[in-house]
This record gives sequence, C-alpha cells and structure tokens, in this order.
Amino acid sequence: MKTLFIGGIKSGKSRLAEAYILQQAVSKPYYLATNEVFDDEMRTRVEIHQQRRRDAFITIEEPVKLLAALQQCRGPVLVECVSMWLNNQLYYQIPEKEILQELEAVLQLSCDLVLVHNEVGLSVVSDNRLARQFVDLSGKAAQLMGQHCEQVFFCSAGLTMKMK
Amino acid sequence: MKTLFIGGIKSGKSRLAEAYILQQAVSKPYYLATNEVFDDEMRTRVEIHQQRRRDAFITIEEPVKLLAALQQCRGPVLVECVSMWLNNQLYYQIPEKEILQELEAVLQLSCDLVLVHNEVGLSVVSDNRLARQFVDLSGKAAQLMGQHCEQVFFCSAGLTMKMK
Amino acid sequence: MKTLFIGGIKSGKSRLAEAYILQQAVSKPYYLATNEVFDDEMRTRVEIHQQRRRDAFITIEEPVKLLAALQQCRGPVLVECVSMWLNNQLYYQIPEKEILQELEAVLQLSCDLVLVHNEVGLSVVSDNRLARQFVDLSGKAAQLMGQHCEQVFFCSAGLTMKMK
Repeated sequence: MKTLFIGGIKSGKSRLAEAYILQQAVSKPYYLATNEVFDDEMRTRVEIHQQRRRDAFITIEEPVKLLAALQQCRGPVLVECVSMWLNNQLYYQIPEKEILQELEAVLQLSCDLVLVHNEVGLSVVSDNRLARQFVDLSGKAAQLMGQHCEQVFFCSAGLTMKMK
Repeated sequence: MKTLFIGGIKSGKSRLAEAYILQQAVSKPYYLATNEVFDDEMRTRVEIHQQRRRDAFITIEEPVKLLAALQQCRGPVLVECVSMWLNNQLYYQIPEKEILQELEAVLQLSCDLVLVHNEVGLSVVSDNRLARQFVDLSGKAAQLMGQHCEQVFFCSAGLTMKMK
Repeated sequence: MKTLFIGGIKSGKSRLAEAYILQQAVSKPYYLATNEVFDDEMRTRVEIHQQRRRDAFITIEEPVKLLAALQQCRGPVLVECVSMWLNNQLYYQIPEKEILQELEAVLQLSCDLVLVHNEVGLSVVSDNRLARQFVDLSGKAAQLMGQHCEQVFFCSAGLTMKMK
C-alpha cells in the first residue's frame, strides 16, 4: 500500500503522516529523512521533527539516493519528504526526466510507503526561473504519486480530505 | 460550536462565513473586524466588507486584543479574520508562543464562534524571512483551529469542502 | 452543463478536463486555447498541450475575444484556460468590471462548457501590485464560475475533489 499526504507549509501533513504510519505498522517503521541541512533555520526545523519521532522510528538520513535507501528497508517507510528530495536533486542538477524515473521506480517497490509532499502550485507563477522549475517538477511528481498511490490525502489546518 | 472557514485570497470565505452565521444565529451576531487600515488599497477592501454587512451585525473593531474583545460579546461572533489579527500581532512583535496561547484561550471560550482564516502555505517557501515567519505562524494557528473547531470548511471558487 | 476544473500549477487540471470532455462529448469537442505566446518557455508549454490533443479536438486560438469565439462553436467547448484569458485582458487594460461581465455572459451561453482555471490565492499577498490585481480578479472569476457551473472539481496531484 502506498499513501500520499500532500499539503501546504505547516498544514500538519508530516504529523498526520507519522500518526498514520504508526497506527498502521505492525513492525517499527522506517523514517527516511531527505533533509540536507544548509542553515540554522533549517536545523531548527529538522530538530523539531527529530524530537517528535524519538524512538518510534528507525531513522535513515538520505537526501539524494532515495531508491537505493528504500531498497535497504525491511518494513514500512515514511518518506519525509519528497519535496525536499526533489529540491536536492535539482541542486545536484539531475535532469528532470531521471528524477521522475527514479520516483516511478520508488513507487513500484513492494514495500508499504507513506509519502509526504508539499503542494506548491496554488499561487501565481513565480518570477524566479528556478522556482518555476521546482513548481513544475513538484507538480509532475505529485501527479505520479497521485497515480500510483492507493490513498491520497490533501491536508490543511491539520486535517485531511481524502482525494483517493 | 466553533466553525472555521479557511481558504485563499478572494475564495469567498468571508462571504460564506457571513451567510453561515446569519443563517445559524438566533440573535444578531457580532462582527469582530481585526483589520488595521494602513493604506488606501486596504481601506477600499474594508469598505467593501462594511457595505456588505450593513445592519445585520453588531460590529466591533479590534485589531489586537482578540480575547478581551470576545469576552465582551454576548452572542455568536464572526471573527474576520484571524490572519489579519496574526499579522497585527507580528507587527507589534508579540512572541509567537503568546499569540498561539491567546488563540487557544479564544478557542476555549463558551460562545459560538465563526472564524475566517487564510490558507497561505500552498506555495513555494518565500525568500522573505518575515513572510516565512508569517506563513509558519498562520499554519500553526490553522492547526490549532482545526483541532478545536467542530466544523472546518475549505473554500475555493466561492464553494466549500467540509474537512471536519 | 457547465463544469469547472480548478487547481494549481501542474495539478493535472488540463489533462483531467480534456479526459472529462472527451468522455462526455457525443460530437468532436472544441478546444479554445487562450494562450498568447510571448516567449520560448511558453511556446514549449503550448506545444506540449497541442501534442496531447492531436486530432481529438477542433482547435480555436483566441486569446482575448472569448465570448465571440464561443458563440461560433457548435458543440461542447473546453476553455483552456480562463486564467490566461484574464491575464490577456489585464494586459490589454480591459477594466475588471467589463472582464467579469464578459465572463458572466460566457457562463450564460447554452452550449456545454468545460472551464480550466488556476487557483492562485492560497499564498501570502504578493508585494507586486499587478500580481495582487491578478489574484483578486482570478478569485472573483472563480467565484462567478463556482456559482454558475453545475459541477466544480478542485484538482491536486492529478486527482479531483468534487466541490459541487
């Protein structure tokens, strides 16, 4: 089973996804953290997330090689989050086609996955070319996940709407 | 009963919230306006809102002391809007923790409340530090309201989706 | 019957709207393309859309005179997209009131319409005056469509939530 939690910044999507996988999983789930820490503001965010998951998860940190990391997991995995992984891929100048191919391969793994992703497209088109590139890639990735996941939840105000 | 209308700019959330409270209320409801008028563009927006509510509401204007203002109300209150109150709090440099504590106290009042709030997080992260601070605070406030309200409506195109 | 597909950038709304009209229509539907091509990035987007619709539609390109173009159509029409038409109207400095009046007239045509529109308001208020004007107009147009359409779908991750 693949499940997607998609929503905005501070929509509660990470907390909802964590609660969901902990409730579903029969064994201790993996927590695949894709953050690459670039500055203090980000470090603070990461530490808040780390505190929350304490001993409930087996934590793996992998900002780039998502497929390889997931292939090592023996049990359900929370991917937190796909947006940051996409961001890192763009940072290392991986072509969009390769990124989406890797994501598609991830979605065809047999393990249970809970994916967290930011919806970033509900605004005017950015005047920044890199931002536009990211928004496009993010939306294409979301569509791929929407297609392959059996369940999709749209998150706002710490609540969910079931899309699929 | 506490009800939240959350949505984007010009999503119709204010109009929907007004129609809702007027339909529900047995006595004339209060209209708590949190706008602080800084410029002409904003004045125009405020006046459009004022025209619409005419004599249907008892209007109170309070940009900052939300809890104190609500404690004076004897009947259902429309809070229009929480986002602007958060914005004003940040403007007066109230610490985030205190802001959220005041909001939590508001949500524990016994009176019927209809809250209007902007969902501002469905976009890329802003390159402006103040905007990022506001988006984070706004999302945390939304989660608090989502948790305490019995009903939550997500608004777009003048329509609602019931989240709770 | 009037149907609105509203969603973010790369939410899949165009693809969903195309699939919907092709499934519903008994005759070959019209495709009213409102894009005006200003640069190479846009040309690429347009060409991707064109490839996808190949021979399934009767294509009309009309960036500005939406009502007049629709009055020529004898059968169901996909309007792709309303946002771009609004953008073009602002570019040619048509007053907002006239734009919304033309849209209202469009919504009162007797033909079957499937409308694609961007939800652009789920972010912080832009510091760019033109962007704010566009976001406001876009939201007002969305509310008008939400009111007149019999069906409204909110799109994210290539999926829909039925709002109406």
